[in-house]
Amino acid sequence: MSATNKTVAVIGGGVIGGGWAARFLLNGWQVKVYDPAENAEAALNEMVANARRSLPRLSDVQVPAEGELTFVASVEEAVTDATWIQESVPERLDIKHAVYRDIQQHALTDAILGSSTSGYKPTQLQEGATHPGQIMVCHPFNPVYLLPLIEVVAGQQTEAGLVDRACDILSELGMKPLKVRKEIDAHIADRFLEAVWREGLWMIKDGIATTEEIDDAIRYGFGLRWGQMGLFETYRVAGGEAGMAHFIAQFGPCLEWPWTKLMDVPELTEELIKTIADQSDAQSGEYSIRELERIRDDNLVAMMRGLKETNWGAGELLNQHDKRLSAKQSADN
Amino acid sequence: MSATNKTVAVIGGGVIGGGWAARFLLNGWQVKVYDPAENAEAALNEMVANARRSLPRLSDVQVPAEGELTFVASVEEAVTDATWIQESVPERLDIKHAVYRDIQQHALTDAILGSSTSGYKPTQLQEGATHPGQIMVCHPFNPVYLLPLIEVVAGQQTEAGLVDRACDILSELGMKPLKVRKEIDAHIADRFLEAVWREGLWMIKDGIATTEEIDDAIRYGFGLRWGQMGLFETYRVAGGEAGMAHFIAQFGPCLEWPWTKLMDVPELTEELIKTIADQSDAQSGEYSIRELERIRDDNLVAMMRGLKETNWGAGELLNQHDKRLSAKQSADN
Repeated sequence: MSATNKTVAVIGGGVIGGGWAARFLLNGWQVKVYDPAENAEAALNEMVANARRSLPRLSDVQVPAEGELTFVASVEEAVTDATWIQESVPERLDIKHAVYRDIQQHALTDAILGSSTSGYKPTQLQEGATHPGQIMVCHPFNPVYLLPLIEVVAGQQTEAGLVDRACDILSELGMKPLKVRKEIDAHIADRFLEAVWREGLWMIKDGIATTEEIDDAIRYGFGLRWGQMGLFETYRVAGGEAGMAHFIAQFGPCLEWPWTKLMDVPELTEELIKTIADQSDAQSGEYSIRELERIRDDNLVAMMRGLKETNWGAGELLNQHDKRLSAKQSADN
Repeated sequence: MSATNKTVAVIGGGVIGGGWAARFLLNGWQVKVYDPAENAEAALNEMVANARRSLPRLSDVQVPAEGELTFVASVEEAVTDATWIQESVPERLDIKHAVYRDIQQHALTDAILGSSTSGYKPTQLQEGATHPGQIMVCHPFNPVYLLPLIEVVAGQQTEAGLVDRACDILSELGMKPLKVRKEIDAHIADRFLEAVWREGLWMIKDGIATTEEIDDAIRYGFGLRWGQMGLFETYRVAGGEAGMAHFIAQFGPCLEWPWTKLMDVPELTEELIKTIADQSDAQSGEYSIRELERIRDDNLVAMMRGLKETNWGAGELLNQHDKRLSAKQSADN
């Protein structure tokens, strides 16, 4: 293995694995995908096509030449030469452990083995592994080829220095690695998604709001705030010169309001699931999922290009990435 | 009162009331503000200046001529001629009731009396009022002059038809009125904000992540998704052709994972408040709040202008608003 061996094994090529394949591919990596599902190759090719029409539009400089995408017939074939192995198989620990056994029989021992798990801790993933040191969580967000965030979490046995090497590579892919300090279930971002999802289920179950009304409450309001500043910075600004401590003193007591119901878990009955699915159909059933994907991607590109102009958040990251690409191209010539 | 009497009384001119004043003013209304706080007028003028530099940039057609902004010395002076009265006083029911008594002694009985309350139900606000029929919740989001969302909630005694009249006026102001079907504490959006805030406090208290890391987890990831599609539509797309019911069947069981701690309320000790305030200072202490406001506003304008290009969500709303303004200007000439 050399520093210039940019070969990635993508194990599991669904929505997340496919997004990884597209991001690596469009950043010049050789991509080998293993997924035993029957329609996996066709679905992945569609996703890569979506990535091709959106990701390059985030760049103001020449993007790297695409790598080569190969569908392979076994884990062994995928991982043999790979310097990065990304596992995105179903969220069951026994499945992941079995896949790791297979991977580690054939993989380079100094390859990075990243897991896309949204729930498990890396130390759980390392249990029983032949080379636990190369395993870490690298949890991305859909669509992986556009959204920069990636949560990187080391387990108790992850090799010293490997996380930093992973973060360097992820940065080269245009991503924003967030090193998570402590292992917890669901890392950071999904804890928030979970909290909001739980609220949303209650709202629908109690007939307070439909899926569309909830989405509107988010995308015309705080979603726009969060897309650029997040939660605490938004409140810092709202609190004004009096500062965060003052803001919390004002806002904090609301936590003691009688909203305890929000903290129960609604039961996912068939009836509730049907209600949600029906409302979602009413909201956007006129679009196919492929169309919705392209709408979403165009929106993300447009918002992030907007943030490039203000050089903030995801936009600042993209501008830095452009500079890096540009410097590299100059050096190569 | 005539249909052309565009006079608004803004009662309480802080961050929210001031934002209302700016939005009305820049949409051609006469604005009378009452706020007994000593520095209220200066702070409001600064906010209006921020609105002037950002709101017009959302428009591709000529914006209305500004109305006149007057600071008045009493509730009576503010409300006498107003067709819209917007109350944004502190979140205490006794204060709001007292202010309504004062307002309703002098106000037109067919004026709309909207409350910016983020927590109370309109029926609670109507208790003991002389004219409960004109009271409703009109809950906006900071910065009020830029964010389109407004939650409109009728109480048990709100006059039939008044909510629709209010929504028409709010649409003319370029806002997105979301009629909330049922009265609940904190309406819709703030229930989500509350859930996320609670999670955030735990993360910081437990040393999992800092304010900056949490903000990064949001603004480089799901915040960008939510800024254009919200929650359910995002998951609809992620679920693929198999549909929402399939997605929920896959994702829903996570609700039963052992994350019950997420559902306790952390105690807001002085120590926790200090930790948050210190982290927030470290995150962006180099900017003044005024600077951060302008950064936020520039970002929001850039993201929403991006969405105008894709004609989606907040961008579609703005394009429609342009058309409405343009048609009105043609009719006026």
